[in-house]
Amino acid sequence: MEQRLDSLRRAMAERGYDALVVPRADEFLGEYIPERNERLHWLTGFTGSAGAAVVLADRAAMFVDGRYTVQVQSQVRDDLYSFHHLVDEPPLQWLAEQLESGQTVACDPRLHSYQWCEQARETLGAMGVSLVCDSDNLVDRCWTERPEEVIREALLLDEAFTGESAESKRVRMAALVAQVDCDAALVFAPDSVSWLLNVRGTDMPQLPVLLSFALLDVQGSLALFTDDRRLPAGFRAHVGEGVEVYPPASFTGVLAEMSGRRILADPANASAWTQQAIVAAGAELVAGKDPVLLAKACKNPVELAGTRAAHLRDGVAVSRFLAWLAGEVAAGNLHDEAVLADELYRLRAGGEYFHACSFDTISAAGANAAMCHYNHMNGEPGTLQRDSVYLCDSGGQYLDGTTDVTRTVAIGDPGPEVRRLFTLVLKGHIALDRARFPRGTTGMQLDALARQYLWAEGFDFDHGTGHGVGVFLSVHEGPQRISKTAGDTALMPGMIVSNEPGYYRDGRFGMRCENLLVVRECDDADAETPMLGFEALTLAPFDVSLLDMTLLTPEEVDWLNAYHARVADSLQPFVSGADAAWLASATAVIGH
Amino acid sequence: MEQRLDSLRRAMAERGYDALVVPRADEFLGEYIPERNERLHWLTGFTGSAGAAVVLADRAAMFVDGRYTVQVQSQVRDDLYSFHHLVDEPPLQWLAEQLESGQTVACDPRLHSYQWCEQARETLGAMGVSLVCDSDNLVDRCWTERPEEVIREALLLDEAFTGESAESKRVRMAALVAQVDCDAALVFAPDSVSWLLNVRGTDMPQLPVLLSFALLDVQGSLALFTDDRRLPAGFRAHVGEGVEVYPPASFTGVLAEMSGRRILADPANASAWTQQAIVAAGAELVAGKDPVLLAKACKNPVELAGTRAAHLRDGVAVSRFLAWLAGEVAAGNLHDEAVLADELYRLRAGGEYFHACSFDTISAAGANAAMCHYNHMNGEPGTLQRDSVYLCDSGGQYLDGTTDVTRTVAIGDPGPEVRRLFTLVLKGHIALDRARFPRGTTGMQLDALARQYLWAEGFDFDHGTGHGVGVFLSVHEGPQRISKTAGDTALMPGMIVSNEPGYYRDGRFGMRCENLLVVRECDDADAETPMLGFEALTLAPFDVSLLDMTLLTPEEVDWLNAYHARVADSLQPFVSGADAAWLASATAVIGH
Repeated sequence: MEQRLDSLRRAMAERGYDALVVPRADEFLGEYIPERNERLHWLTGFTGSAGAAVVLADRAAMFVDGRYTVQVQSQVRDDLYSFHHLVDEPPLQWLAEQLESGQTVACDPRLHSYQWCEQARETLGAMGVSLVCDSDNLVDRCWTERPEEVIREALLLDEAFTGESAESKRVRMAALVAQVDCDAALVFAPDSVSWLLNVRGTDMPQLPVLLSFALLDVQGSLALFTDDRRLPAGFRAHVGEGVEVYPPASFTGVLAEMSGRRILADPANASAWTQQAIVAAGAELVAGKDPVLLAKACKNPVELAGTRAAHLRDGVAVSRFLAWLAGEVAAGNLHDEAVLADELYRLRAGGEYFHACSFDTISAAGANAAMCHYNHMNGEPGTLQRDSVYLCDSGGQYLDGTTDVTRTVAIGDPGPEVRRLFTLVLKGHIALDRARFPRGTTGMQLDALARQYLWAEGFDFDHGTGHGVGVFLSVHEGPQRISKTAGDTALMPGMIVSNEPGYYRDGRFGMRCENLLVVRECDDADAETPMLGFEALTLAPFDVSLLDMTLLTPEEVDWLNAYHARVADSLQPFVSGADAAWLASATAVIGH
Repeated sequence: MEQRLDSLRRAMAERGYDALVVPRADEFLGEYIPERNERLHWLTGFTGSAGAAVVLADRAAMFVDGRYTVQVQSQVRDDLYSFHHLVDEPPLQWLAEQLESGQTVACDPRLHSYQWCEQARETLGAMGVSLVCDSDNLVDRCWTERPEEVIREALLLDEAFTGESAESKRVRMAALVAQVDCDAALVFAPDSVSWLLNVRGTDMPQLPVLLSFALLDVQGSLALFTDDRRLPAGFRAHVGEGVEVYPPASFTGVLAEMSGRRILADPANASAWTQQAIVAAGAELVAGKDPVLLAKACKNPVELAGTRAAHLRDGVAVSRFLAWLAGEVAAGNLHDEAVLADELYRLRAGGEYFHACSFDTISAAGANAAMCHYNHMNGEPGTLQRDSVYLCDSGGQYLDGTTDVTRTVAIGDPGPEVRRLFTLVLKGHIALDRARFPRGTTGMQLDALARQYLWAEGFDFDHGTGHGVGVFLSVHEGPQRISKTAGDTALMPGMIVSNEPGYYRDGRFGMRCENLLVVRECDDADAETPMLGFEALTLAPFDVSLLDMTLLTPEEVDWLNAYHARVADSLQPFVSGADAAWLASATAVIGH
């Protein structure tokens, strides 16, 4: 790592840069990135999903958020980097304190949002420090054994899965571009492009997006920027007339024809490089939301039917896993976390349309579960602890849907304090599941419903309650979310969100109850104010042995019995033998 | 009204204006304004607390929000004005559709926020229409019988009421000005200035603010802009060294010395005129929050003790009123709304430190209560209806505190539907009252707690759940609130908010349950996450005859019994005879 840092410093010196920002993001600004673009990992050894390094000639600093403050200490050398909190002491603030007037900070504008670069220019400029946007990436120059680009052929998703042709989607989205008086829109996020074209990439199995961005014009034709070796035969017929494919580097060339036109782009989510190119081409940059975001978030009936079918298969796999686990524990086989995760994978992978996991399985025994983003692959896997709880957060990418489910399981008798906390967490889960709310309500308004019982007892959990989920797309998608922090997107019918309150006690245990929910209109036709509500998509039993029944209201017990009855009715046709017996027992009616 | 409109149009023509905006706000941008400044009322006849007229040579339009869409039709002539929704179709949008390039819109920059004027300039400018800021108000020119300015002597509030000297407050606030690297701050709101100087105005009894604004410099000295005839003997000794008094018109002169300095001002809440003057003086305008806002919102122990004492007196008055009302109804005396409001006033006015009502009492019988902002003074007062509910929302300004309370009372038997709805409303009130939450939580995050039971049954109410309240200051103060709409101010210890869910059925009935609450730290010393919670300040029984007991949980019944026990214990020493008997009965323990 020291040599890598040294070579980077030499390269910086050659170009006259006093500081260089190396973010974790790649040129698509996504959460999952191909190995070839893991620049921060190459430089520092850090494997987290968010963070940044800042390198100066004689100092370097590493910035990570609360999820990774422990991990960074074991992965990054503290003699080479000082550690800072990404949110409380962000890179720009730290940089402004290190540098003097006349010095220069470099960044690769492909790896940052336009908003970030504008902010950087302003913050540094106030100190007399200049920002250089240099897209000839210095890390790439120093990275001698950088992996080759993976080019795998994309999948063309049939309308039987998508419910709408790519042409129809383009026409609909073009109308939204017209509504804001623009001539074109930059569709930057790979999952937006993938949804729009009914295409899925296979370069990164967990995130099946076509690595690409696009320019959609107000007539509905589209310039797609991607390596065309990814496009299978039949692509042109699949997407219809009016789609031209260009290498990403041709973006500036295509823009040359757009001089004087109004181009919609999202300063917060699209790269600085693309928007700087729009400005440089003489087009007018109109700040606004990617029109695809909301359309993609509101699933159509075909997507919802597929998602329900995927959840049924996923529920069978998860329930068979839980049944197997119960048997193994009863037989005294306390497996390690890797064995457990592998068995769950094996069961899931046998399901129809299975493509990959939707994220690295969090298989966490004992105290490991206190780390919300624990990964047993980062070191020696832990082993199930007797009289404790095991947390398993996992999901699948199926051609017809994406799943994400967490169950917390008693291993022996974890005792009354764990049962009390699990019950408080599940009460919050139930309160959010049962919520009804008028149109216009945001996830921020509902978040407290999931936390209220923990709050009442002096507890909380330090992550969001729910994130959006795609259909055979990203397991984390916006714009909706259920969290403490503001987001102005109202929950709308067809949106999928997770419902995952939890509780974590450092060094002791962790627990989480997660179902995916879909927003739908309530049936109550004579309601004065029409209400929206949720329907749980996830089908898997909760561990009732973890309940403190004295803390549940009759309504909560009714909810649990009704949910378990639905789980049993849905899954029993697909399980047999010991699995069926376990499922019957796990979903048996519990008393008030 | 027609003559007034004509004279205004002639004046507009003389100055070459094609349109004039006449808002309801006056030069202090407050909610209550002196009669002399009721320009919108003079021009149109409209008495609501928010709205605007826009006058063109051949058309005129009136803009009001949802609270006043009925009222405007009875008060404003529809042959002179077209009616529009203030929020859905705001004046600027309407104006942009009426005018052509080259035309001119005039406004008085003293009556608008800086933000509004900047927005107007941009919106109109895009159409080629220019905005003229003309502080020589045209309405004032035409208003021949405009009331003289009321100049009444202000009150100097002793530290026994305020808990902190004016000098100490200035030093504390100056430190906040220094924190944002400014040389001075514009303290624009009259209630901010009144709090800062421990002074209360008497021009408008319901809102006891000194009509003034101020410039606080980073050393803590203060330039106060007000008519010095309002300042009583002893003012200078009261506020301490470093306070200079100027007539408001001298503002530009004082600013002349500030050229090149950084002045903090709030573009959304301070007038355009003041901020345009800052810019014109060559000072740098720094957009930010009035530092006084948050300090004023978090009451100190002396303010809280005073507020509790005021609520005790207020609770005695309200309870005696409710006892009297019960007796009158039992005796068959179905009074009109004015008689009821007057009796409540009489009882309140007998209390120590009573100064005035904190707003016009909402005394609403039968269907009148379906209008949230009903005022029986606007027409013939209604009469109590048998087998219905009576809603009374009222409050007092006391030297030691400000109160605001709503009780809904059964008149006879209003039937099961009203009882069901009242119980859902009270369940929401109880849920918010009982909420515990970590620091950093905003009122928006808690709002759904108060609505959840109505939402579950397909109902909602169309107003905020809670507003901030001052101490012998405005009954509506920010920055905190509990509502569906975002506000980034977290609830902090010492803040006072109302808790007032309601339900309204057009043409039938209305109900609301309102207590004031103070935010405080929870006692639970061993909580893992320290929590905040509420303490109810208001002391008056809820009408238990309006409850559907089958809808209440045991915990809610316990809450009601505990609250009523506290009400009885607090008030019984101060009531006697029939009042005492009624109070004992109204607060008697109810069963599960």
